[in-house]
Amino acid sequence: MNARQNTDMEQRAHADHHASLRLWLRLLSCTTRIEDTIRQRLREQFGITLPRFDLMAQLEREPEGLAMGEVSRRMMVTGGNVTSIVDQLEREQLVQRLAVPGDRRSFRLTLTDAGHSTFATMAQAHQAWVRELLSPLSTKEQSQLAALLGTLKTVTPRTTRSSPCKEKP
Amino acid sequence: MNARQNTDMEQRAHADHHASLRLWLRLLSCTTRIEDTIRQRLREQFGITLPRFDLMAQLEREPEGLAMGEVSRRMMVTGGNVTSIVDQLEREQLVQRLAVPGDRRSFRLTLTDAGHSTFATMAQAHQAWVRELLSPLSTKEQSQLAALLGTLKTVTPRTTRSSPCKEKP
Repeated sequence: MNARQNTDMEQRAHADHHASLRLWLRLLSCTTRIEDTIRQRLREQFGITLPRFDLMAQLEREPEGLAMGEVSRRMMVTGGNVTSIVDQLEREQLVQRLAVPGDRRSFRLTLTDAGHSTFATMAQAHQAWVRELLSPLSTKEQSQLAALLGTLKTVTPRTTRSSPCKEKP
Repeated sequence: MNARQNTDMEQRAHADHHASLRLWLRLLSCTTRIEDTIRQRLREQFGITLPRFDLMAQLEREPEGLAMGEVSRRMMVTGGNVTSIVDQLEREQLVQRLAVPGDRRSFRLTLTDAGHSTFATMAQAHQAWVRELLSPLSTKEQSQLAALLGTLKTVTPRTTRSSPCKEKP
């Protein structure tokens, strides 16, 4: 390989790196923008935070209820301590702790009837907002986006590895 | 329109709604997964939080420095109070406050030389991680994704509107 080819490849690699970074920042900013809009509307129209809505959404899908650890694991958004979210929702009688037979120290969390009803109203509005916020894309484009994100999801991050960057600079 | 057509349309609308919601949850989970991996690696390999890295990245792009309000506005990630992030980075001599001539109460924030050098090392690793995390997609697929997200970005959320959902349930 001559020097010129080498330089070209380095430039191309650099351009690729840069394109990946731009793509990531675009992905992050699109997601953040939609999430912030949903967060704001939930607060304004229903007086509820996004993590509280998210927690109720996890429970809605599980008629048998969920253990606390499972609730934490399934949350889609960060922010807010799960225990304090649960305490607050329980005070408002939207969720309840159910005893687990044979295990006095455990409980499962479910929505109350009022919780189901409140969540249904919010979920309907939420779904309409999501549809509106994704509406710049045609149905076909939304399918393409879903397929590309499906491919992206296959990534298995290497969370541990030995690299020269390991040391703190 | 007869009743059958009406039902078909409702079902299709319901299916569309549901597809939009699934797409949004996929977008959110892809972004969160990449963000969490980057957050973890920054912490493990450089002992720095994502908001601190983000703040340094904003300053790196502005040799003239930024006012505090502008720094807050440009942050890509949430979490962490900007003032306390700045205080900590200043103690580590990675950022500095520069006086604004003629305005004793204002200052602009810039990276120090040590800040530039530390950020350069982290940015190189960060760029390689992003490239790795996006690598399930070919270059062509990454271009397609960037184009679709570019279209999505054109959305202008209606942040205020009068709707029957306005009242707290």
